[in-house]
Formats: sequence, structure tokens, C-alpha cells
Amino acid sequence: MHTVLSSHGKTVTIGHDQPFCIIGERINPTGRKKFQLQLRAGDLSAIEKDVFDQIAGGADVLDVNMGVPLTDEPALLSKAITLIQTLTDMPICIDSSIIEALQAGLEAYQGKALVNSVTGEDERMELVLPLIKKHGAAIIALPNDETGIPATAAERMVITEKIVRAVEKHGIPLEDLVIDPLAMTVGADPEAVKITLETIYLIREKWGLNMTLGASNISFGLPYRHALNAAFLPAAMSHGLTSAVMDARTHQIVESVRAADLLLGLDPWGSNWITRFRAMQAAKAAQISENGA
Amino acid sequence: MHTVLSSHGKTVTIGHDQPFCIIGERINPTGRKKFQLQLRAGDLSAIEKDVFDQIAGGADVLDVNMGVPLTDEPALLSKAITLIQTLTDMPICIDSSIIEALQAGLEAYQGKALVNSVTGEDERMELVLPLIKKHGAAIIALPNDETGIPATAAERMVITEKIVRAVEKHGIPLEDLVIDPLAMTVGADPEAVKITLETIYLIREKWGLNMTLGASNISFGLPYRHALNAAFLPAAMSHGLTSAVMDARTHQIVESVRAADLLLGLDPWGSNWITRFRAMQAAKAAQISENGA
Repeated sequence: MHTVLSSHGKTVTIGHDQPFCIIGERINPTGRKKFQLQLRAGDLSAIEKDVFDQIAGGADVLDVNMGVPLTDEPALLSKAITLIQTLTDMPICIDSSIIEALQAGLEAYQGKALVNSVTGEDERMELVLPLIKKHGAAIIALPNDETGIPATAAERMVITEKIVRAVEKHGIPLEDLVIDPLAMTVGADPEAVKITLETIYLIREKWGLNMTLGASNISFGLPYRHALNAAFLPAAMSHGLTSAVMDARTHQIVESVRAADLLLGLDPWGSNWITRFRAMQAAKAAQISENGA
Repeated sequence: MHTVLSSHGKTVTIGHDQPFCIIGERINPTGRKKFQLQLRAGDLSAIEKDVFDQIAGGADVLDVNMGVPLTDEPALLSKAITLIQTLTDMPICIDSSIIEALQAGLEAYQGKALVNSVTGEDERMELVLPLIKKHGAAIIALPNDETGIPATAAERMVITEKIVRAVEKHGIPLEDLVIDPLAMTVGADPEAVKITLETIYLIREKWGLNMTLGASNISFGLPYRHALNAAFLPAAMSHGLTSAVMDARTHQIVESVRAADLLLGLDPWGSNWITRFRAMQAAKAAQISENGA
């Protein structure tokens, strides 16, 4: 199953037979005080660096969240998307919990966007899915509902089933549904990652749907998080994860994803891997010659 | 199922509910000309550094191979094992393709050894298994036979079934059988790792047996091998691999294994992980203070 995203100039395909899709997560003011103040003052200039850093790190899609308290989020998100589309033709994942912001973002966006996200709550689905249908977008859906985050894979499957039915009812093709199987920190529950892996495996087996998740959640509260995240993604990919929302600036994690692409037959004969290796060697050689000069 | 190895002073348990067992692979003259010449001259002094490097890197068991052409391998292996047991109480994996060497090694070894290895060939099993039974050792078995290395997981399962029956026939408990599901390079076949992962999963599902493999094989002929090996092990562990023969000197790969332990619930609440992190911080602080002095 292929989830095809596009911008005014570029297409990105998420699929079980495609290299893993890295959704760069940095364009988000959460926990960034200075960036919040700038955005509140209408200054969007800091976005440019974030966009280029994510692209340089290896992002395939850019997640854009403008959730700044006490601002007009729909207007801000719309403005940010228009700006980013002048900077790059990378497809965008429009990220908000506010329906009006999603609407404004979808109206501003040129191309077929991914929307982040909807839950399995009836009320939320009835608000968000018509918008997805209207704009022909793709949607990330989380298998949690009014009762909270299900503790077992079986319960997550039940809510996923409900989401699949709602998506079909709204006339949205299943290839435009991307499930977030819910990644929780292993620091709070030693079984957390095993439950996520099992959910990924079952969703792939049953529906063949694409999946994404907030990869860094799994290591929340633990030391040396990048090493945990780098180990998690190959395991998740080998179970059927096809995408993740992650910070593409961390070299070790991106490298781990591209290594897993090769191992899982998604980079046949290692052509991407070898290109990457040569670029790294060239960059290193350039640096040595610069330092030597 | 627990494979319990021991030396004169220490016990190591391999199991699906245990932290991953790293079998240090460096004590092996293959491809090491200088080491071969030393061993041929009866000089075993280089072994000491290899032993300490593997232990420092995080090995749980030491693989010992003395396959030097034109030497009396049984005598050399026996001597090496006796020497190593004066240096450390880490359990040993006795590694040879020569039956007389395995016999000499088992006779010299104090404790319950792991033997590396036997294939599914009838003739080999009839030679090796009585020796394993006699010494109460554990054995690594490879599901290939006279016809070569099976291309599919299903064929590897058929030979594993044959091995399981032979082991039972010789009165060896199944917990002392460790299957090597065969890891081939993804550089020669883009499906190679997927086939290995599938074999691991099926063997765990059907028999719950412990498994080990030569982890670095998967990246043979490719650049930047340590990153590929580091990405492979968490995926293999998440499918049921409980051990690997690997070079414990490569920090990134050992770190990846210990991260996967935590992620898969084999290091509950991260106590090993946090200890490791603190030791690294202390080492770094010591280095900074040394450089500053």
C-alpha cells in the first residue's frame, strides 16, 4: 500500500517496499521559549534554519506545528506553510490538535499533505475526516479513544479497526490512512516497546497499512536517548513501521534508519548506502584539507 | 528455555528472558598473519590482550578458535583454553571444525562449554553429538547440510527439525541446543537478512530454542560495516535472537545490543543501561581532567 504525498514540485511515497520515510519534527515551538516569543511577535525567520537543518539531516517530509499559546494558530500555521513552500518543495505534514488550524493549513498548502493527527474518538473523526476527504489529503490516526491509551496490542487493534471503518465510511482510500501504533517510554513500562512492536506487526499483517510514530517517545526520561532511539527504529522497521516523526539532525539515528533500509531489502544492492558513505568520506576529506590549509 | 554455560568460577545463562549474550569472537587467527606465526611458534602471549579487550568491550562468553594451518590444532586449542582459564573465569565457546580439536578442547575445559559448531549433516552429527553428550556441553548447530545453505526460512526449519530430533536421540536436553539461523551478506542478496529474521522468528515460535549467529556476516563486502551490524542486532533480537558471535571491541555495536536489551524488557527499568551510562560519564570526566592536568 502506497501513501503518496506531494508538494508543488515533489512526490514522496511511503510504503512497505519503499525506503523508510523520515518526517522531520523540528519545526515545532513546543519547549522552545525563544522560538515561541519570535512566532508570537510574527517573526517566522527562525523557521528557515529548521527547514534546512532537517533537509540536510535527511528528512523526506517536514512536520510543521505552530502550537504557540495565545496566538491565532490557524493564521500562523497558514503563514508558516506558505513560507516553507517558498523555501523547499519537500512535502509537509500539517500538525495541530486544533481543527481550524488544520483547515487553514490545508487551504494554504499546495499539494497533497499528510495531516497529524486524529484519534479514534468518534467526535474527532467526525470533525477531521471530512476535511481530509475534501482536500484529498492523507491522515495519521492514533488508536486511542475516550478511555485513554490502550495497554495491549489487541486493544489498539480494536480501535484501529474502528478507524479503518470510519475512514472507509468517509470515502477516503485506505492508502491515505497512516496509523500511529503509539510509542510510549520503556522507562515507565518495560513492556512498552514490545507492545508497540506487536501492534506494528499485527497492523501490517491485517491491513498492510502504512505506519508512523513519534520515535523519541520510547526513550523519554532515560539517559543517552539517541542510542536507544537508534536501536529502536531498525527493530520497528523489521516489524513493519514505514515512517517516523523524528529529529533528522541526529546523525546516528538517521544512519541507523538508512542501514535498516539496506538490511531489509529497501535499498537493494546498497546504492543509497554507498552514495551516503561516499558523501561522508568526501565531506571528511574536505574538512581535513581545510584544516590542513 | 535456558542454556546455562559455566567455567570454574562463573555461570552465564542464555535465554529469551535474559540480556543478550555477546560471544566475543576475536580469539581466532583467521586472517591474522602475525598471530598465526606466533601460534605456530608456540607463542600464545598475544591471546592475553584479546581476552582482556573482549571482556573490557562487554563480552559475556569468549569464542576460542585455534585454526592455524600446519599446526597440531587439538594440542594448540587445549593449551589456549587452559591458558585462558588462568586469565579469566568467563565461560568459553570452543570453536573448531576438527572433531579431535573439539575433543581436546572439551577435555581441557573446566566447566560447561558451548561448542561451535555442528551442521545438520548426519555424518557430522554422529561424530559431534556423542562428544557433547559425554561432556555435558551445549552445542551450536547450523541448519545447513550436504546440499549447502538453504535459501529459504522454510528449508532451514526442515533441517532444524532434523537437528532437534538428532539431539533428542542422543539424550542431549534441548536447552543445550543453540541454533545458528545462518546470516549471509545483504550485499549478495537483498533478501538475505529478511530470510534470517524470518528463520529466527519461526524457530522461536516453534521450539523456543536459543539462537546465535556470526553477526558481522550480514555486512560482508559493504562499506561502513559497524553501522550495518549495529542496526541488524536490535532487529534480530526483536525477532528472537538471544546471542551473537561478534567482536566486542566495537563500541557502537555493543551499545546497540545493550540499548535493545532495555527496549525489549531484558534490562527492566534500565538498571544496566544507567550503570553503563554512568561509567561512560566517569571515564569521560577522568579523561577531561587528565587532559586538563
